[in-house]
Amino acid sequence: MAEPVGVAVVGASGYAARELIQILLKHPDVRVTVATSRQDESPRLDAIHPSLARRIDLACEPFDADRVAERAQYAFLALPHTASMAVTPSLRDRGVKVVDLSADYRLSDAQVYEDWYGHAHTDPEGLQAAVYGLPELFREQIPAASLIANPGCYTSASILGLAPLIAEGLIERTGVIIDAKSGVSGAGRSPKLGTHFPECNESLSAYNVGRHRHTPEIDQILTTAGGGGEPVEVIFTPHLVPMDRGIFATIYARPVGTPVEHDLLELYRSFYADSPFVRAINHLPATKDSAYTNFCDITVRVVRGRIVVLACLDNLIKGAAGVAVQNLNLMLGAPETTALF
Amino acid sequence: MAEPVGVAVVGASGYAARELIQILLKHPDVRVTVATSRQDESPRLDAIHPSLARRIDLACEPFDADRVAERAQYAFLALPHTASMAVTPSLRDRGVKVVDLSADYRLSDAQVYEDWYGHAHTDPEGLQAAVYGLPELFREQIPAASLIANPGCYTSASILGLAPLIAEGLIERTGVIIDAKSGVSGAGRSPKLGTHFPECNESLSAYNVGRHRHTPEIDQILTTAGGGGEPVEVIFTPHLVPMDRGIFATIYARPVGTPVEHDLLELYRSFYADSPFVRAINHLPATKDSAYTNFCDITVRVVRGRIVVLACLDNLIKGAAGVAVQNLNLMLGAPETTALF
Amino acid sequence: MAEPVGVAVVGASGYAARELIQILLKHPDVRVTVATSRQDESPRLDAIHPSLARRIDLACEPFDADRVAERAQYAFLALPHTASMAVTPSLRDRGVKVVDLSADYRLSDAQVYEDWYGHAHTDPEGLQAAVYGLPELFREQIPAASLIANPGCYTSASILGLAPLIAEGLIERTGVIIDAKSGVSGAGRSPKLGTHFPECNESLSAYNVGRHRHTPEIDQILTTAGGGGEPVEVIFTPHLVPMDRGIFATIYARPVGTPVEHDLLELYRSFYADSPFVRAINHLPATKDSAYTNFCDITVRVVRGRIVVLACLDNLIKGAAGVAVQNLNLMLGAPETTALF
Amino acid sequence: MAEPVGVAVVGASGYAARELIQILLKHPDVRVTVATSRQDESPRLDAIHPSLARRIDLACEPFDADRVAERAQYAFLALPHTASMAVTPSLRDRGVKVVDLSADYRLSDAQVYEDWYGHAHTDPEGLQAAVYGLPELFREQIPAASLIANPGCYTSASILGLAPLIAEGLIERTGVIIDAKSGVSGAGRSPKLGTHFPECNESLSAYNVGRHRHTPEIDQILTTAGGGGEPVEVIFTPHLVPMDRGIFATIYARPVGTPVEHDLLELYRSFYADSPFVRAINHLPATKDSAYTNFCDITVRVVRGRIVVLACLDNLIKGAAGVAVQNLNLMLGAPETTALF
Repeated sequence: MAEPVGVAVVGASGYAARELIQILLKHPDVRVTVATSRQDESPRLDAIHPSLARRIDLACEPFDADRVAERAQYAFLALPHTASMAVTPSLRDRGVKVVDLSADYRLSDAQVYEDWYGHAHTDPEGLQAAVYGLPELFREQIPAASLIANPGCYTSASILGLAPLIAEGLIERTGVIIDAKSGVSGAGRSPKLGTHFPECNESLSAYNVGRHRHTPEIDQILTTAGGGGEPVEVIFTPHLVPMDRGIFATIYARPVGTPVEHDLLELYRSFYADSPFVRAINHLPATKDSAYTNFCDITVRVVRGRIVVLACLDNLIKGAAGVAVQNLNLMLGAPETTALF
Repeated sequence: MAEPVGVAVVGASGYAARELIQILLKHPDVRVTVATSRQDESPRLDAIHPSLARRIDLACEPFDADRVAERAQYAFLALPHTASMAVTPSLRDRGVKVVDLSADYRLSDAQVYEDWYGHAHTDPEGLQAAVYGLPELFREQIPAASLIANPGCYTSASILGLAPLIAEGLIERTGVIIDAKSGVSGAGRSPKLGTHFPECNESLSAYNVGRHRHTPEIDQILTTAGGGGEPVEVIFTPHLVPMDRGIFATIYARPVGTPVEHDLLELYRSFYADSPFVRAINHLPATKDSAYTNFCDITVRVVRGRIVVLACLDNLIKGAAGVAVQNLNLMLGAPETTALF
Repeated sequence: MAEPVGVAVVGASGYAARELIQILLKHPDVRVTVATSRQDESPRLDAIHPSLARRIDLACEPFDADRVAERAQYAFLALPHTASMAVTPSLRDRGVKVVDLSADYRLSDAQVYEDWYGHAHTDPEGLQAAVYGLPELFREQIPAASLIANPGCYTSASILGLAPLIAEGLIERTGVIIDAKSGVSGAGRSPKLGTHFPECNESLSAYNVGRHRHTPEIDQILTTAGGGGEPVEVIFTPHLVPMDRGIFATIYARPVGTPVEHDLLELYRSFYADSPFVRAINHLPATKDSAYTNFCDITVRVVRGRIVVLACLDNLIKGAAGVAVQNLNLMLGAPETTALF
Repeated sequence: MAEPVGVAVVGASGYAARELIQILLKHPDVRVTVATSRQDESPRLDAIHPSLARRIDLACEPFDADRVAERAQYAFLALPHTASMAVTPSLRDRGVKVVDLSADYRLSDAQVYEDWYGHAHTDPEGLQAAVYGLPELFREQIPAASLIANPGCYTSASILGLAPLIAEGLIERTGVIIDAKSGVSGAGRSPKLGTHFPECNESLSAYNVGRHRHTPEIDQILTTAGGGGEPVEVIFTPHLVPMDRGIFATIYARPVGTPVEHDLLELYRSFYADSPFVRAINHLPATKDSAYTNFCDITVRVVRGRIVVLACLDNLIKGAAGVAVQNLNLMLGAPETTALF
């Protein structure tokens, strides 16, 4: 058996990092050799994440590109946006391949990035090199990539739900409505009033209506998936749901031509036939059935002449840490499902 | 001080009935003199609803129209559909005014009722006489009514959210999308697998997509609110949310002309200026802010040329028991807000 | 009808204050004339608590004893401990009666206060004057009081659960175990990691084991309730439960003599016969039945020779804002239940 | 690589069975070859458990001992009590080793079984042969067993929390208080009013106080763990907590001698040094840290001379399916942690 490949988790204190470590602990081909955090002391990982006790014996350290490169061939960046592009070049210069879970390399146009994130992009070269890490659409390009832009959670559900329709030219490209619902872990681990338990428990609310940063990402990737041409333009409305995990996207599109429900479902089945983590199902999905898994469940309905797609996934797994490992598997040449079933 | 008016709660074992009784206990002008249920023994109300202990001393009895009429001038029917229309004529024949919380008298066309509910309507005369009990739209007709069709919970949020736009002719009448989310109490009190805690907790799911029975009710009332003409036709998608209470409707409509967000909000403010329970707000709503109240919170946004309305309310209060008492107040000539603040 | 009495809510931004305002809005004899908060601008109350929109039209102001005294005869202090005793003397000097919801005046011995809260007590005179505001035990002393120490939420459930047994000398006074469970609103409104939704949702945890500050309060009041003598000493273990509201105390006591379950329940019924908000019930309680009410539900069992008492209440109502209004009612000479049913 | 061992899941429609199948799918040495259920048609497993779609391709069949024996060497019984002992002899007669997740073989004394379960025991021979499947206490006996009585969820947390103290003779054996809290999945998958979402959500309640059937199981195993002698007798109080998963036991014991907190924690560490799934921790536990894992987290405190132990685990994993696989691993001679990290 080959020596395991060293991987680093940069920014280890959040939820996606914790899920990532848990998945990597089950991976036969890799070993987590580095974990970094900005905390002053070098806390053990299980001091930050008590659930990791007796599973991994590793202390967090401050980020140092040389030390990462000594011990790891791959680095997962679970950092806030802007922090990722601040360290990515130093890792790539040292030959470390990067899977970035932030938004920094998702938007191919630096200007669009600046418009939506309010910062100039500081690594245009990386932006050029980055491959969008949604294996269901870009499986061919991922193995050779040195920098993966791991997709956003809302984005993955939305894109997987729409890609077959866009690719086949079955819907109008503008005015596509994505009414999305997310569990609270999607908001990260920093306490804020809006995610304080007695505020968001027993409540459903909308937020960032018309302004959520996953909007341009969905537009861009779906336009690409549609082979260019008229840009896709979605109306994206996120909601906060009192549950830990799960993204649910209810998508409304105007068909070109007269859609037949059964044919649409067959289209989804064949479109995703080689994608082990997309389940085109006949029944209406519930987030719980894909929670704690790397699956995305999708179905499609025709209602009064409109196409309604319902897609869901676990925001921390298929929407973050799981797809990151799926990308790693493709880069390693390992079976795509390794450590993910 | 006048003698309190006797009221009956017919079908007292469910959640809406419990809320209704709690509200009526605060009402200075009425007294709950009858409660009925189909249970064999005549259990005390607080045996069915332990929360009512030391608040009301009344035993449930089997339904008997004569006995209701002897003691009550008003009857609230918290019965399943078809059960309501089976008893309503007997009450009205005896001079008892009826507020029906079921769907039996909401659809003015008996054929539409049969199409969606699968039963022929057995009380066409009542159907003719019934007034739709949404005070914000039909405040003038309610005082003189002898039979009120209390609106559905999804329906109220949807109609209140859309009425100003329809009334002013600001949106296209077909293809209106209502993406609705409900707490679990909306499913009633009968245990089923779908509402078993470990199934629906930590899960968001869609159900009855394209087939929910509130659809024709929304269509009909909005068409009326629009002054007739082209029928309104909505695409209605309900979702189940892991919380007790609350309805949230996210509504997407195509404007006629170019909408201005600020003007739209002003329209809502003026449209509901005389409606004490509709709050046209500027911030994005959360169900929690209207939970356990009779308020409906609404705001409006323009996103990429589409109008997005966000409306929410407590499904058991403003969506059922609260609006029922609001109707009662109008019938009694009492202030509309009595017992509801 | 008499002019309503002016009341002030000092520290209006937290959960107990919000509940208090909601209750006071239903009170026929009082009007909230002042609300204070430490926030820089003077936000409207409904900007802090959106649920209060269209219910109260009042802006928060910085605390100023003169301005409070001009407009209010009673002040409710919903402040952190130490902040309460910093302002109480200034209010009492101006003739304003105070109901303090903090812990500052609950412990009659200033040294015990210092031992558990880590601060010297700065208002010994107030401490001397304060009456412990648990009406079920101190109903006689409350009307004449000028300063009420409103009890803690855990404390009320624990004391109401144990008082009959202590008063009747039926249990050993030391080694009484109180295993207590609380909803998250009990932790206040300031966001912290421990109350961040994805941390405490779907989790039950213990905290402050052996160190919770309600311990000496329970000891002291029960010792008083027992007529002095051997001090009561409880082992108090609080747990955090993933729900908004509710305190549940499971109490284990060693009987003196041989207890008979039925007789114990009768004792509770007679002990609380004149207390409208204590329900001695036969079935096992659930917090939900007393949620959003001012009731405390209690039952008692004998298990293998040990007495097990189960008591629950809503921490924000009977455990804070509701009992505060109950105290106000007694001070006003109004019916104890005014605004509380 | 050896041919995988065939295993059967008898009674595949509940939560423990679903968890078991999910774990077994990750197990390199076994294959699930049979699943049975009492349902009329032979539904696919993923029709019963949608989360299993694309993970296992197997239809449920009615139970038939011959057909099980043809394809499986081990059978997990996830059946209600009495149903297990009705089929166990037929399986053992055919050489199939049984891990029974029901209560049927846990109580070594048939009379105690009858007293608490209300049925005579129909398989005294099996009862004689059964080994109690708590590896932390009975690791030596499990490998050779042909019938394993898998422990109850409450029982495991309680026993693991108390065993070191009992084994070392550090506490009084009677009057031990176990205040236990469970997530709702512990109540099984059959809808009932008590587990209907709007009833148990946002509520904490006690149930079966003094009468829960895990009581004699805890008594018996702890007496055994203590080397016989004076029988252990616990006062066991279960509570229902509004969360999916997790058992939390707060245990109060009277010490023999003067306990030192630090020494007690060391005792737990050494007692469980060879048990990979017991984590003796210093901080206060939260169920979430062991949720979805096979860990049991334990800590210990001394409060006012009383020993307080806090133990928690996931009721469906360490409390059911996980420990069942732990037992299987020991029977197979595989590493105890296989498929469980």
